[in-house]
This record gives sequence, C-alpha cells and structure tokens, in this order.
Amino acid sequence: MLKDFERKTEDKDVLKAETKALREQLTAQQQLLMEAKLPVIVLIEGWAAAGKGSLIKELISEIDPRFYSVVSPVIGPEKEERYPFLYPFFSAIPENGKITFLDSGWMESAVRKFLRHEITRKEYQRRIRQVNEFERQLRDGGYLVLKIFLHIDKKEQFERLRNLAEHPETEWRVTDEDIWQHKEYKRFQDTYEAFMEDTGDLLPWHVLDGKNRKGAVRDAMALLTGQIQEGLDAGRYVGEPFDEEFPMKEMPHLSEVDLSLTIEDDEYKKELKKLQKRLSELHNIIYRKKIPVILCYEGWDAAGKGGNIRRVAYPLDPRGFDVRPIASPLPHELNRQYLWRFWTRLPRTGHICIFDRTWYGRVMVERLEGFCGEKDWQRAYNEINEFERQLTDWGAVVIKFWIHIDPETQLARFTDRQNTPEKQWKITDEDWRNREKWPQYEVAVDEMLQKTSTKNAPWYIIESNDKKYARIRTLKIIVKALEEACENRFEEMMD
Amino acid sequence: MLKDFERKTEDKDVLKAETKALREQLTAQQQLLMEAKLPVIVLIEGWAAAGKGSLIKELISEIDPRFYSVVSPVIGPEKEERYPFLYPFFSAIPENGKITFLDSGWMESAVRKFLRHEITRKEYQRRIRQVNEFERQLRDGGYLVLKIFLHIDKKEQFERLRNLAEHPETEWRVTDEDIWQHKEYKRFQDTYEAFMEDTGDLLPWHVLDGKNRKGAVRDAMALLTGQIQEGLDAGRYVGEPFDEEFPMKEMPHLSEVDLSLTIEDDEYKKELKKLQKRLSELHNIIYRKKIPVILCYEGWDAAGKGGNIRRVAYPLDPRGFDVRPIASPLPHELNRQYLWRFWTRLPRTGHICIFDRTWYGRVMVERLEGFCGEKDWQRAYNEINEFERQLTDWGAVVIKFWIHIDPETQLARFTDRQNTPEKQWKITDEDWRNREKWPQYEVAVDEMLQKTSTKNAPWYIIESNDKKYARIRTLKIIVKALEEACENRFEEMMD
Repeated sequence: MLKDFERKTEDKDVLKAETKALREQLTAQQQLLMEAKLPVIVLIEGWAAAGKGSLIKELISEIDPRFYSVVSPVIGPEKEERYPFLYPFFSAIPENGKITFLDSGWMESAVRKFLRHEITRKEYQRRIRQVNEFERQLRDGGYLVLKIFLHIDKKEQFERLRNLAEHPETEWRVTDEDIWQHKEYKRFQDTYEAFMEDTGDLLPWHVLDGKNRKGAVRDAMALLTGQIQEGLDAGRYVGEPFDEEFPMKEMPHLSEVDLSLTIEDDEYKKELKKLQKRLSELHNIIYRKKIPVILCYEGWDAAGKGGNIRRVAYPLDPRGFDVRPIASPLPHELNRQYLWRFWTRLPRTGHICIFDRTWYGRVMVERLEGFCGEKDWQRAYNEINEFERQLTDWGAVVIKFWIHIDPETQLARFTDRQNTPEKQWKITDEDWRNREKWPQYEVAVDEMLQKTSTKNAPWYIIESNDKKYARIRTLKIIVKALEEACENRFEEMMD
Repeated sequence: MLKDFERKTEDKDVLKAETKALREQLTAQQQLLMEAKLPVIVLIEGWAAAGKGSLIKELISEIDPRFYSVVSPVIGPEKEERYPFLYPFFSAIPENGKITFLDSGWMESAVRKFLRHEITRKEYQRRIRQVNEFERQLRDGGYLVLKIFLHIDKKEQFERLRNLAEHPETEWRVTDEDIWQHKEYKRFQDTYEAFMEDTGDLLPWHVLDGKNRKGAVRDAMALLTGQIQEGLDAGRYVGEPFDEEFPMKEMPHLSEVDLSLTIEDDEYKKELKKLQKRLSELHNIIYRKKIPVILCYEGWDAAGKGGNIRRVAYPLDPRGFDVRPIASPLPHELNRQYLWRFWTRLPRTGHICIFDRTWYGRVMVERLEGFCGEKDWQRAYNEINEFERQLTDWGAVVIKFWIHIDPETQLARFTDRQNTPEKQWKITDEDWRNREKWPQYEVAVDEMLQKTSTKNAPWYIIESNDKKYARIRTLKIIVKALEEACENRFEEMMD
C-alpha cells in the first residue's frame, strides 16, 4: 500500500472544478445528514508533516460549526496513561447527525507505542483486535466511518521537516517524535502497512497522496461525500448479532437460587467489620499498584443495592472511588452509541468505580420496553463481552453482581416503602409497572447471565432476601478478587 | 481563629447519641433536598493529615450515592495549569438537589501557590477577590455553601505524619508537600487565618477540632443538617442585583449604528487573504505563548454569524481552536448555575475558542422569555463582568461581537432562506417569533452593551448588512487584539 504507492499527475483546472463541485455537495449534505441523524467519524492518519491538519482545515471549512468537531488525541507515554487504549477514541464519537474529525487516532497510538517498545507485541496484537471490535461496534451502531492515511515518502518528509525547522516561527513544530519517526521511516512504513492490513477487512483504508495537497483534499472530499451519500441512500445500518467465543463461567438460572440463606446478627457485625477493614487495606494497595476496579450492581427493585453499595463504599477512601448511579440516558447520551456514556464514566487507574446499574440496561429494560431494536440487544451480549474484555485487558478488575430477591420479598419491601413516609420517595409507579413484568424480566436476566458471565468479568448472583447476608457475600467476593489482583500482578506483568 | 483555638472536652455517650440523631436527620433530609431542588456545596479545607478524607467518609456514609459526589481537585504547579484558577471548582458544582463534597478546594489552591511563590501577592489578592465573587454567585444562584476548616496543631500534625511515615503501607501517603507544610506550619497558619478573614464576610468559615475525630464528625453533621434545614425552611434564595464598578468602554445605541457601510469585492478578497494570513501567523504565536483566546459571537438571526465565524476559523490550525455552538441548555446544565456550561467549555491556554452564542443568552432570550427571574437577569450583568474579568485576569483575550443588521435585511434573508430549498433548515418558526419581538430585543441588547462592555472584555458592534464588510471588520479587530496581546506580555508579566 505504501511501498508501491503510485502518484498520479493531473490537470489543475479539472482538479479545481472537481473540488468546487465536491465542496458544494458537502455543504448540501449537512442538512440531510442531520435529518437522517447519521453520525460520521473521519479518521485522518498519516506521516508526521504529511499535512493532516491542513487537510482537516479544508474539510471543515464549508461545514457549519454546529455539525462537526475536531479531536486531536494526545498520545502520551504509555506508563502515564490513566485510561484504557480506546478511551480517547470512544469518548470522541459524535452525536447522531454530526461529524468528528480525528487528527490521528487509534492507528498512531498503537503503532507508535509498539515501535517505542512501550507495549509488548502481545499487547499490540490485543489493541489491533480492540480496534477491529471498536470499528465493528461503530458500524453496527449506524456510524459512518471513513479511514484515511495521508502518505508522503521519506524524501518529501525530510524536505517538509527541514522547511519547518529552518524557520524560527515554525521550528517548534518539529518534535523529537517527528525526527525519530523520520529516522525510523522504514520500520514505521512496515508497521503502518501491516496495521492497515490487519484492520482493513471490515472498513477499508484509503491512502491519499500527501504530496499533492489539493489532490488529497479533493480525494478526501470525494470519499466523504460518497460515504455520506451511500449512508443517506441506504438508511441507517443496523448490525446483525454475531458469534464470538469467550471463556465462560457457568451460571445457574435464577429459579435455582437458594434465597433462604441468612446470617445471624452477631456474625454479621463481626464479619462486616473484618471485611471492611480488609477492604480498606486493599484499597491502599490497589491505589499504589494503579489497578482500576469496576464493580457493577444490577438487581430487582428494592433488592437492597443501595444499602449494599454503602457498606462497600464506607471503608474506601473518598479520594479513590466513585459511585456512578446510572439513570435514563440524557439526550446527548441517547444520541450516541449506547456504550459511550459508560466509557466516559470509567475510573482512572488505581481508582474504584461502583456502577449502580450499568450497560446491562441494554439487554433488560431497553430490550423489554422496546427502546432499542431486537438486533441491537441481541448484538449487545457480545459487544458487552468485548467491552469488558477491553477493560480487563487494560488490567481492570471487573465484578458484576445480580442482587436477587423473590417477588414476595419485593412486595413486602414495596409495601413497607409505601407505608413509611420517609421511604415513599424510593417507590414510584414505574417500580410497580416493572414488577408486573417480573416473568419477562426473569427471562431476560437469565439470558444475560448465561451470555455475559465471562471468566474475566464474571457475574455473581447475590441472595438478598436477607440483606445482611447479601452484604457479607458481596464484600467477601470483592475482597477475594482484589487480593488475587494484588497478588497476580507479577504473573500478569510477565505474560 | 487558629492560633487561639480552644479544644472542648466532652462526654462520649452524649457525643455518640448526638451523632446518631444527626445521622438520622441527614438521611431524612435527602429526599426533602431533592424535592426542594436545593444544591449544596460542602468545602472541607484544613491541615495535611487533619482527617479531611475520613470526615468526608463519615458524612457520605448515610447518603444515597445518587445525591452526592466527592471531588478532590488536583493542585498542580501553577505553570502547568491550563485553565483559570476557579475552573476546577466551578466545574465541580452540583446539580439542584445534590451535594458536592470538596476535599480541599479554593483555599488550599490559592494559599499553597502563594506560599510556594508560584503566584505573586497581587495575583493572590486577585484570587481572594475571585473567591468572594464565586461564593456570592453561588449563594445568589440558590446554592447552600458550607465552609469547614479542620484544624490540628503542629504537634498533632507531627504525630500523625510520623505515624503514617513509620508504616510501610502508609508511608507513601506522606508527601513532600505535607512535610513542607509542617516545616512552614507558622506561615501556613497565618495565611490560612488571613484567608478566612478575607473570605468570611458573606459565608462564614467553621473551624472544627480535627484532633477530636468523632466530635468533628458530629460538628460537621450539625452544620450541614442545620444549613440544609435553614435552606428548606427559607426556600431557594435569589440574590439581589448589586453594584460594582468596572472600567467601561463607551458604546453607541444600536439605532445609531451606520448600517450602510460596504466593501468592494476586490478590496474584500485582497483584505480577506491578507488578514487570514496574518491571523494564521498570530495563531502560532498565541499557541507558543500559551495565551488563551475567547471570541464571542452574538447577533440577530440571519445576521451572518456562521459565515463570519467560518472566515475567522479557516486560517486557524484545527488542533488549536474550537467552535462551541451554544444551543438551549440540556437538563443537567439547566440544573446548575447558568455560567457552569460555559466554564466547562473554556479553552485551554494557547487555544482559541469561538462561542457561537454565549452566556449573554441570560440577559436576552432568558430575560425576554421569562426563563429566569427578573433579579436573575438583572444580577447577571455584573456576574458576567466578574466572570470575564476572571478570564482576562487569567491572561485570556476576550472579544465580543454583536453582529448587527436592520429588520429589513433580516426579512430579506429570512425570505431567501424560506425560498431556497438547501437553506430552509436554517429558518424555523422560532426565528419568525423572535423577529416579532425585535423592539424588546433591541432594548435588551442596548442595555447589555451598555452594562457589559468593559475595557478588558469589550463589545464591538459589527455592521453586517454587508456580510463581507462585517467579516473584514471582525478579522481586523481580532488581528489587532492578538497583536497587542502578543506584544504586551512583557508589561503584563512585570505587572
């Protein structure tokens, strides 16, 4: 793709006329894109000094600022990264009807860190897999994704960098990274090429001639308007459910769970104190070892999630954890791929994040209430498995709790809430409506537990008819998982 | 306050009983707070190792995670700060009905940087003024603000730091900053005291005894529940308009503006090219000198804001600027002080941010449509002047454009939009409704221009019956302002 890249010669007047026509087409498409609510991502990768910034400048010049944003991800040294590999890119995805231009992105981030030996080959391969998962998830979620690589040969890069370096006002633009890339041109070229091959099956790469600046603008505009037109003609794409193998933990069905389990009060107090003390110590170690921890709570209404979370949170240093209550999505969240609002709420390394309800809403309430299509929730099982694998690949501990009660216990708690003035705010009409759908929910929850309890991010069904029993059980599971995580780091480091 | 701090002895059982009662009260208040939609900020300042984190842990332990968040601002070295002083604190303010706990905040940030000689005494004084402005704006916006200082004496701090330092698991918690503070205990004490005096008039400081951990929890809970109760009893506070002197630039009334000004096409093309080239060079310098630039666009519908912005944006490097289109506030924005959504959209140092509509919506559409109370928009003139002074104090260039046309020109453009299929999306029923209110808007705009055209953040009325004339004029104003900013830095540095 790059080694044998052939440059075309072309007629200046034709080029000018073509560009003008394309500009007008792009201007006209804005409104249609907005009406069709199609989101677009334009990824511009390429060599240092190839002109990525100038290309983006031309592409946006005819677009209303309300419809686009430009994102230039900062690629810092790997050891200073506080979020997973895909975090800056997932965070940057646009709302429906809008365009995000990325001034280099997941290719540059992965390749540069690999060539810098900041990540191993194995980790690099994982990132390539993650990129393929990410791009598929975007496409399946209705995103139009255009991937461009702006190419210049080594000689041209030399001239451009020299030009910049020789002028006092532009000298600062030539970074050590640029010089290093130039010296390592061949290695970069091979790696870029391999990367494009490894990630080009689903969504193709387009290599444009960076030496022909105006030609590149025309080509990029032709690709962009073409892709938008295809999207407008075909309508929003909805991905099919797909198969993917994950190592699974076996899960019982909810009907098989023994809800008679209880704990004595004395035992509860003793255990609570002991486990909270231990959790507090572990939080310290987690923080120092920079291990991110993600605790997910799902469960029936009135199952006791809130009280359970408070007992887990109590021993934690408030500087090092957050509880993220998940309510209905806001408009700007609803207008993006459904995982976006969870990606943007991830903890930093060394921090603990407790999600009070999670991304599993997709396969429960959104499925049952018809807030998404059938293919969408069916596809979600594996998309979520991928998401969680991306998190555990990053080094996160991911634990998921289904806080379980039976319908009789729920009724008793609902009635108690109804009859106790201070608790009335906790019970809404929606809770009663959901309760009527218990059987449908049970089917959905069972399917969810079967399909998403991976070994790396397992589900635990917590028997919570006795709330105290439930609290001790979750604490024990968390403590055990954190102890293992603190111990296992060396093995993982060597893997 | 600190030097002569007297510790109380107290009965353990009484303390325990009081704390229990307060806990229950706090639990009960959550729902009421939510119903009354009152936002609460609890600032916990105090000595290193005084137990701020543990205090917050106790305060949150009975609160539902949906109702609070804990924020620990990172206080980095001044020269690495990319945002204004108040940015992390304004960003952290809660939504209506929720509580933010700040684990140290504006006191620690200002004091530490001052004692570290990272900021001058003059800048320190400015920050004290900004704190007073900030706290008043919060109170006037209906926020309940509780300010606590957790005190321990030098001997106690020594013991606590030694305890931490002597245990391998906690050794890392004793930072160089802590040791330095201990060595400089006296200077810190004097400065903390003076800070509390300088910022205690409007909202009082409460010094709690950090040595009596359980007593401090009880005291903090008593203060918090007391303040919440007062807020619940009195109802949401609405601040009165206030007087404050700002050096003003004289502004004409809209009716005096000469809208017949035009530019020849040849002249336009020549000037546009020249000015854009110069702006591109200046962007380079701005970026290197880390000067933040904020360009504000307001104006009549169809006045030509969009096209004007595009001509300004075109020569800029997309990596170094953003256009922020301001639409109606989202629910989570509407539920906070009205400036919050602008604070959180500020550019970093060295970046240019173009606001397409701004915070001036408060005194135009919100005033005229009754989206806020009369006192709210009347108070807003000076609140906005304060906000903009905080920005220019930070070193930002702030320029505000009123893009002006007459009603006849607007009608012609509306009609053209209506009759041109590609432009129809640009014209809505709301535009026609707004047009009917032209006279009321003109009154509001005139008042706004008179009251908020400060010397540091001046308004320019741009004659835009001829859009090309308007573009050249804004470009000239921007270029001139940036040239001055690039030149003046040395004077400012020495000020």
